[in-house]
Amino acid sequence: MRLGKATGTTAEERLGSLGLELPPPAKAVAAYEPWVISNSMLYTSGQLPWVAGDLRYKGKIGAALSADEGYLACQLATLNAIAQLKDALGPLEKVRRVVRIEGVLNVAPDFSETPAVLNGASHLVSEVFQERGRHTRMLYTNPQMPLDCACLIILWAEV
Amino acid sequence: MRLGKATGTTAEERLGSLGLELPPPAKAVAAYEPWVISNSMLYTSGQLPWVAGDLRYKGKIGAALSADEGYLACQLATLNAIAQLKDALGPLEKVRRVVRIEGVLNVAPDFSETPAVLNGASHLVSEVFQERGRHTRMLYTNPQMPLDCACLIILWAEV
Amino acid sequence: MRLGKATGTTAEERLGSLGLELPPPAKAVAAYEPWVISNSMLYTSGQLPWVAGDLRYKGKIGAALSADEGYLACQLATLNAIAQLKDALGPLEKVRRVVRIEGVLNVAPDFSETPAVLNGASHLVSEVFQERGRHTRMLYTNPQMPLDCACLIILWAEV
Repeated sequence: MRLGKATGTTAEERLGSLGLELPPPAKAVAAYEPWVISNSMLYTSGQLPWVAGDLRYKGKIGAALSADEGYLACQLATLNAIAQLKDALGPLEKVRRVVRIEGVLNVAPDFSETPAVLNGASHLVSEVFQERGRHTRMLYTNPQMPLDCACLIILWAEV
Repeated sequence: MRLGKATGTTAEERLGSLGLELPPPAKAVAAYEPWVISNSMLYTSGQLPWVAGDLRYKGKIGAALSADEGYLACQLATLNAIAQLKDALGPLEKVRRVVRIEGVLNVAPDFSETPAVLNGASHLVSEVFQERGRHTRMLYTNPQMPLDCACLIILWAEV
Repeated sequence: MRLGKATGTTAEERLGSLGLELPPPAKAVAAYEPWVISNSMLYTSGQLPWVAGDLRYKGKIGAALSADEGYLACQLATLNAIAQLKDALGPLEKVRRVVRIEGVLNVAPDFSETPAVLNGASHLVSEVFQERGRHTRMLYTNPQMPLDCACLIILWAEV
């Protein structure tokens, strides 16, 4: 479970070099905003692993989904989170630093590979933002997830 | 599950128009502070659905409590969080922006309406603070809650 | 469950007066940084209850571990978090304020003493940083923890 190495001089070129394309920013699933900027920090709300309005990864990692699928779910939800950064900022070069990733995982009892699964988020941020992508993170597991999604990802970015 | 529309020109008038009154700020249930301000951001600790020292909503939403009761629990815990803002700031007009709501819900297995339940927090913040109440949020579900409370709510407010 | 009273004029003297010594800062268990400073706030990643590379407290508090052991696990993970502050800052006197503790606990079903257990983190921060250690906090319980650790602790410090 390891995303390839990105090449290119901008975050968007590096995304392209990984074969990834930013989706349109997803609407919030309830009565809140997808992102807010305050005191030079951009916070997203929890982002789900959407592809064109379809929730691609549902169910528990370690049961309905493999660890590899969990990794890809985290990568996809993070791609959706980067789409929110773009919606907020325009050019992703305005990101000075990704400060924190918060990841909530939907896992089966006794599933023990959660840090490796959440690397699906960390690797993408690191490849896309390089030095500016060096982040802290917090990993949570929750028994019930919105829409039974496999994961929720939040990014904080200094802008 | 939808709070009514508030009227009035100040946050406190809008609270009153909803038939709500700020409770006294609750003490922390352990060795921490109910709020801290740092770098122009006010963070509350987790707020419970208290009414006059009585924990009004206990148990799991979707079992002991209905979804409607869960919505009201989130509204009530948020009212307690707004009481912390008032304790910190005096006039609520000093809130420049509610930046983030963190909600932890105590739910039964397979309960799937968590985003709608947490709207109990989001709707109250939106009605009371209007444009300044447009917030991001993160929803968690946890298997064991302090005092078996139905929910915990944290607010971040730029001040 | 109550840490003793610290004496001394600096944070490090007070740690010593409690019979505690800062461990070397632990490496992250996956693809992220142990700490980041942004806009004068230092955020750690989740810290585990390590002693010299050995995860001292594993399993569920209230089953494999007693409440007292859970308290000590939170204290130890917080000691590891303070070691990250020192790694970032050098002298701990550069901490202007500990703003927030986030604690995730690994607990047995029906274990109800979570706030007292997380006081293992709060008491240590309060004794070491005194007035500058007055913090907000958020307590989570999660069904699956990385490496089956008893707790994860994050500190935010204004620097």
